[in-house]
Amino acid sequence: MTARLRELILKGALPQGERVTESGLASLLQVSRTPIRLALATLQQEELVEGAPNRGFRVRRFTLEDLREIIEVRATLEGMAARLAAEKGLSQEQEDTLVRCIDELEVLIASGACDHATFQRFSEINIAFHATITEIAGNAALTRSLERTTNLPFRSAPMLYVLPREEALMAMSESQRDHIRLLDAIRQCQGARAEFLMREHALIPLAKAALLIEHMDAALTIPAVADGTF
Amino acid sequence: MTARLRELILKGALPQGERVTESGLASLLQVSRTPIRLALATLQQEELVEGAPNRGFRVRRFTLEDLREIIEVRATLEGMAARLAAEKGLSQEQEDTLVRCIDELEVLIASGACDHATFQRFSEINIAFHATITEIAGNAALTRSLERTTNLPFRSAPMLYVLPREEALMAMSESQRDHIRLLDAIRQCQGARAEFLMREHALIPLAKAALLIEHMDAALTIPAVADGTF
Amino acid sequence: MTARLRELILKGALPQGERVTESGLASLLQVSRTPIRLALATLQQEELVEGAPNRGFRVRRFTLEDLREIIEVRATLEGMAARLAAEKGLSQEQEDTLVRCIDELEVLIASGACDHATFQRFSEINIAFHATITEIAGNAALTRSLERTTNLPFRSAPMLYVLPREEALMAMSESQRDHIRLLDAIRQCQGARAEFLMREHALIPLAKAALLIEHMDAALTIPAVADGTF
Amino acid sequence: MTARLRELILKGALPQGERVTESGLASLLQVSRTPIRLALATLQQEELVEGAPNRGFRVRRFTLEDLREIIEVRATLEGMAARLAAEKGLSQEQEDTLVRCIDELEVLIASGACDHATFQRFSEINIAFHATITEIAGNAALTRSLERTTNLPFRSAPMLYVLPREEALMAMSESQRDHIRLLDAIRQCQGARAEFLMREHALIPLAKAALLIEHMDAALTIPAVADGTF
Repeated sequence: MTARLRELILKGALPQGERVTESGLASLLQVSRTPIRLALATLQQEELVEGAPNRGFRVRRFTLEDLREIIEVRATLEGMAARLAAEKGLSQEQEDTLVRCIDELEVLIASGACDHATFQRFSEINIAFHATITEIAGNAALTRSLERTTNLPFRSAPMLYVLPREEALMAMSESQRDHIRLLDAIRQCQGARAEFLMREHALIPLAKAALLIEHMDAALTIPAVADGTF
Repeated sequence: MTARLRELILKGALPQGERVTESGLASLLQVSRTPIRLALATLQQEELVEGAPNRGFRVRRFTLEDLREIIEVRATLEGMAARLAAEKGLSQEQEDTLVRCIDELEVLIASGACDHATFQRFSEINIAFHATITEIAGNAALTRSLERTTNLPFRSAPMLYVLPREEALMAMSESQRDHIRLLDAIRQCQGARAEFLMREHALIPLAKAALLIEHMDAALTIPAVADGTF
Repeated sequence: MTARLRELILKGALPQGERVTESGLASLLQVSRTPIRLALATLQQEELVEGAPNRGFRVRRFTLEDLREIIEVRATLEGMAARLAAEKGLSQEQEDTLVRCIDELEVLIASGACDHATFQRFSEINIAFHATITEIAGNAALTRSLERTTNLPFRSAPMLYVLPREEALMAMSESQRDHIRLLDAIRQCQGARAEFLMREHALIPLAKAALLIEHMDAALTIPAVADGTF
Repeated sequence: MTARLRELILKGALPQGERVTESGLASLLQVSRTPIRLALATLQQEELVEGAPNRGFRVRRFTLEDLREIIEVRATLEGMAARLAAEKGLSQEQEDTLVRCIDELEVLIASGACDHATFQRFSEINIAFHATITEIAGNAALTRSLERTTNLPFRSAPMLYVLPREEALMAMSESQRDHIRLLDAIRQCQGARAEFLMREHALIPLAKAALLIEHMDAALTIPAVADGTF
């Protein structure tokens, strides 16, 4: 139930700022109030809803400042993952996965395509690339912290969908350039370099944060698979 | 109710690995089962209990590896706070607070005292010092992430209590030396230096992690105010 | 005399590996042997010539490994300059200079021109940009160390001249993107970010080091004003 | 001749600010003027003497600011060496050398001795420890840059000799603590950590720079083997 409710928020079916009640959600989803109550307690913890059981809840509205702060924390945590990955070193299988992601992104970008299907594919490969680095880092507490900071609405409204065509193409190329350098740094055990390359990489959406906020209302039209990490 | 239940776990009244049920806790705390159920959902989110409503819960048991990983994530996040503090700069009031903390720690250490009252006072001032840096950093998402990683059992079983007298005195001196350097770095807007000084500072408990784990069973005898950040 | 002899080497008029003698140079430049002897002692110190007064000198031949190592040291020192600049903060005049450099590079790149005159202009502005950052850093020992690592042959055979047209245009754009981020980091007192942005920026020629070595023999045809810092 | 003249300056036999002439030095050292002239050209390049052949030379006088700037550059370069060492990894032999240095320093410190012989032994082992890290880093351009920044007068007037007994003992302990952490970071391929640990380590003399300057006049009484790196 928590997962289902979370998805409704992340996809924008329950818009930001919307007031939600146990009884309203119970009738909407045709379940009893108890599972709804438990789910709301969890989502409150995740900061996706605000309020209290007795006073009623509201879907959290993210400000530009919220977004900026979350992006900065995520950049530091992703940087830590890249640093640990460089320090611990790659298995052959992990290296193969990273190389394959880069090769697939290369083909995608070279195609010159710039539609929603392309963005969705870009996001999928991109998520796989970053998840592999986090896996190499091998710190479960870090993995959980990263999951918490990506379970957020703008996760489903990433930059690519809201940029003009030329800028979206450029953004994919620049992102790819960072991926190549990251792999190079990790291969050479350059932890400091990997950490700061990743930080800078994860800060890219910062420049587009205002644009992202603006498009959150239109979030419903955007496929949920996409990822804000970029 | 969540706060009360959390405290019971953090203080060790509900020992690690202990099986807990809604009905058992409801009768122990003389409340109805609904608030207990909500509290458990939240504590599960905080990873203080493991399990599921229908299968029953268990107070989480922390391994040495868990502790190591959490300390590393916290070190990176505390480092971020110190970096942001150095970049944003201090108000006169914030600088005064940091200086006062350092002065009070100086007096405490110079006294040569090495008992529980001293450790408790050390912890209080130490918490104030770190909280001030986090406040200067001024990133709410970071503050929340740091709170999550300090809401953990070993928070109430810090190094000082488990070290031999000589080592405890030495540990307080070294910690203080780091505080002085941190203030110096923040004053001079040296973000890179502040970040890495803080990381190293926050990694100190790593060397004592095994000792901390060992003493968690005896956690009840240790005042809850103490902080693992050191 | 030292400056004149240095220029002959840097421009390639005295090719790498060439054997040089006091009497030969004295007759070539129509001066007595004493100033030549003093100049050679200095150039030996700068590692532009190898050998000894009694055994004769040879213009140093740079290997790919030499180049790689020098680029890495320079990247670390340039990174230090950017860090200090961010920590010390900009005067209005210094900020204006950096902004003007970026604006002029923007116009140059937007023109789409890709000939030697463009590269020369790019290099001049680029040198001014980096020199301003070093000036802001305000550490005379650092300035001297940076000068020593740029007084080297490949300084006159920079990347732009040896790249295919498409790559040269791309290289100027990427370089410019780094300049913009560097200014942003310095403005916000982000020392750690500025340091690592600059390091990465100064490592760009690494990928082209083999190409640079290859073209050093043809160095004579390349204007001496150009700079390897990129 | 250059080495002999350099030693006279570094040991203080030719005091800071002293005016020196070719003929004066030639008669002092009982050699002809030509080797003196060449040596002065080299020492001028090393910034140990200032002036010009025709105007006469003067032994350079170091200000507090000079010292501060040189220490900062050296800290960044030593940090680079530690980072590269962590990234490249240790051979068994190199690791053995570092461990042996640490063991020998441990014995020295545990002895409680605090005289010139102890300081000299401390300096010798300390130099070996740092030289091994530079060797592991394996960048010849870096090695040369580090040599240039250590060929300076205060190299022969290190902190230990000018501190009160209690502080000298404390300084050796703190230095040793840093050595242990550095070895730990290098062993674990933690490049970022190694770089910043070393930077902080190499900045220690900064706090004592004023004291060092003051004692440079008395430099003659201090053995030349000692090293400012600490």
